[in-house]
Amino acid sequence: MTQPSQKALVPFVSVDHMMQLIHHIGIAPMLQGICDRIEQDFHRWPLFDKTPRVASHSDVGVIELMPTSDGDVYGFKYVNGHPDNTKDGLQTVTAFGLLSDVATGYPVLFSEMTILTALRTAATSALAAKILAPKGSEVMAMIGNGAQSEFQSLAMQAILGLKEVRLYDVDPAATAKCARNLEGTGLRVVSCATAEEAILGAQIITTCTADKQYATILTDNMVGAGVHINAIGGDCPGKTELAPAILHRSEIFVEYPEQTRIEGEIQQLDDDHPVTELWEVITGAAQGRKDDKQITLFDSVGFAIEDFSALCYVRDAIKDTSFFTPLDMLADPDDPRDLFGMVSRAK
Amino acid sequence: MTQPSQKALVPFVSVDHMMQLIHHIGIAPMLQGICDRIEQDFHRWPLFDKTPRVASHSDVGVIELMPTSDGDVYGFKYVNGHPDNTKDGLQTVTAFGLLSDVATGYPVLFSEMTILTALRTAATSALAAKILAPKGSEVMAMIGNGAQSEFQSLAMQAILGLKEVRLYDVDPAATAKCARNLEGTGLRVVSCATAEEAILGAQIITTCTADKQYATILTDNMVGAGVHINAIGGDCPGKTELAPAILHRSEIFVEYPEQTRIEGEIQQLDDDHPVTELWEVITGAAQGRKDDKQITLFDSVGFAIEDFSALCYVRDAIKDTSFFTPLDMLADPDDPRDLFGMVSRAK
Repeated sequence: MTQPSQKALVPFVSVDHMMQLIHHIGIAPMLQGICDRIEQDFHRWPLFDKTPRVASHSDVGVIELMPTSDGDVYGFKYVNGHPDNTKDGLQTVTAFGLLSDVATGYPVLFSEMTILTALRTAATSALAAKILAPKGSEVMAMIGNGAQSEFQSLAMQAILGLKEVRLYDVDPAATAKCARNLEGTGLRVVSCATAEEAILGAQIITTCTADKQYATILTDNMVGAGVHINAIGGDCPGKTELAPAILHRSEIFVEYPEQTRIEGEIQQLDDDHPVTELWEVITGAAQGRKDDKQITLFDSVGFAIEDFSALCYVRDAIKDTSFFTPLDMLADPDDPRDLFGMVSRAK
Repeated sequence: MTQPSQKALVPFVSVDHMMQLIHHIGIAPMLQGICDRIEQDFHRWPLFDKTPRVASHSDVGVIELMPTSDGDVYGFKYVNGHPDNTKDGLQTVTAFGLLSDVATGYPVLFSEMTILTALRTAATSALAAKILAPKGSEVMAMIGNGAQSEFQSLAMQAILGLKEVRLYDVDPAATAKCARNLEGTGLRVVSCATAEEAILGAQIITTCTADKQYATILTDNMVGAGVHINAIGGDCPGKTELAPAILHRSEIFVEYPEQTRIEGEIQQLDDDHPVTELWEVITGAAQGRKDDKQITLFDSVGFAIEDFSALCYVRDAIKDTSFFTPLDMLADPDDPRDLFGMVSRAK
C-alpha cells in the first residue's frame, strides 16, 4: 500500500466520534458553542453565498444538498427526509457534511451530521428564542416528542435558562422516552395528556412533529398573547403545523425567505406576506419583539449557514483530540500531472 | 464504543482501494465496463433527473456539486477545479462521490472520485469516438499530456482498438511522462515537437489542456476533413481550446446542451447553434457521422450521469471484495425516535 500524503487525508468524524466529542465537551457547552458560532455567522450573513437547497423529490421522500460559502470556507450538507423510514426501523433524517478550502477546493472536514443537525437545529431555535421570546421565559411546551425534542429542551436550558418543559405527543411512548432522557438534567419535566395541557403557562411553544402533510398541531384558540412559537416541524412543501389564523396574529421571523416561503409555515400565506429575517434582528437592522403582548413566530426550516457554523465548530473542536480518523479520500500524486503514474505504482 | 448496526455503515472506497480495484480488474476491462455502463445509462437518458451542476465560483477556482437520480438510485459528485493548484503541488481536480437509495435516502456507497473521474471521462470519450470517429480509426493525436492523457489513450485502445497515439504538450516534460507511462501497453507512442506534427495521420484529435482562459489549441487550418475531435479541456465559462472556425465546420455532439452552452467550446457560438445530444445517437433518435469527409466534434464537459454510471460500476465491482471499508457515517439508534438516548448511552 502506498502512503498518502497529509494533503490527501481528510479528517472524518464518525457517529461514534461525534458522540464521544459531545461527552468530552458536555452537551450544554457544545450547544452554547454552536449557538455562538451561528450567531457570529448570522452577523456576517450578507457575505455568504446563499441558494435554496438542491432537492431531489420522490414519492416517499426527499434528498437534498445544502451548499454555502463565506468566501474562505465552502460547506455543504447531504440530508434526506423520509417520514415512512421509521416503520422500517430507519431514521427519518440522516445527514453528513463537508467543509473545504475555497482557495484549493480541498476538503478539510468530513463529518456525520445526523446528530450534529439535531444540535444545530436546537441551537438555532435557542438563538431565536433568546432574541424573540418574552424576557425571563422559563417554561416551554414541547409538542412532538421525537428525535429533536431532548435537544430542543437542553438548548433552551443552556442558552435561555429554561426551567420547565411540558411534553406532549400523540404517542404517549414518545413522551415517556423524552421524559426518561431528560431525567437528571435539572429541567422540571411535565408529561401532558393533551397539547392544551402542555401549553398551560408556557412562554415558549415548540412544535416539532414529523408527518409530511398539512397538519394543525396548534389551533388559533390555543395560542394566547405574548408567547413565542418555535415552529420546527414544517420544513418541506405540503408540511405545516400551524393554523393559518395563528400566522396572521404573529410577527413572523425566518432564516432565508426564498426557502421558507416554499418549505415553512408561511407557504400557507401570500408570497408577499411580510416577514423579518432573523439575521437582521441580530445585526440590529430590524426590530425583534416589540412588546409583551406580541406573538412572535420563528418559522424555522433550517438553512445551510447553520450547518456551516456547526461544521466549523466541529472542525475547531476536534483539533488536538482523537475524535476523528484521517480518511484517504483525495488522490495526491507527487507530480499532480502524474495521476496515472501513481495508479501504476500502486500495483 | 457502541457498535453501529449494518444499516448505519456505508462502504467507503478510498484512493488506495480504488487503485487496488483497478489492478484487480485490469484497467482495460474496467474502462470497458464503465463505458458499457455509461452507454446503458445514456440509453435511458430521459428517465434521469437532470440539472446543471451547482457551482460555487471564486477568483481561483470552482467547487461543484453534480447530482442526478434514475428514480431508484440517487448520486452526486463533489468536484473542484483550481488551475493554479499544481503550482503548490496539489491536484487541479479532486473529487469524491456518493450513491444512495431513493426509497430510504440512506447512502449505499461513498467513494473517492479523483481517479474514478479520470476513468469515466476517458470511457465517455471512447464511447463518443466509437460512435462518431471514422470506421477503423487507429491513430489519435493527444494534445495536452497531463493527468488525463494516459487514461484517454488507454480507453481508446480498449474500446476502439487504437494502435498509435501521437503526443504533444507545450511542456516536453509532460510528454515524456505520458510516453513513459504508456510503455508496455501495446500502444505505439510517438512524441511530437508541435501540435501540427501530432495530428499528422490522426483520425482522432483529443485536446485536453488545463488553462482557465480562452486558448486556441487547434487553429482552423490544422484540422482536415474526416477527423473526429474529442475536446475535453474546455469545461468551464471562459475556458475553450478550439478556434471558432473549426466549430462552424463541424457537426457538434454534446452531453447536456443546457450545461455545454455555458461551459463547453460552444460557449463561443450563438445560443441556438444546432447541436446533437450524444444519447440520441445512442438510442438511434439522431444520426451520428454522416460521411467520411465530415468533421465530428464531441464537445465534452462531463455530466452527472457519467459519474452516476461510474459509481454504480464501482458499487457492483466491490461486492465480495475487500476493496472498501465500512464507514460509521449514519446514526442508527435502535428506536429511530431515540437519537438522544443513543448519544446518552455512548458515554
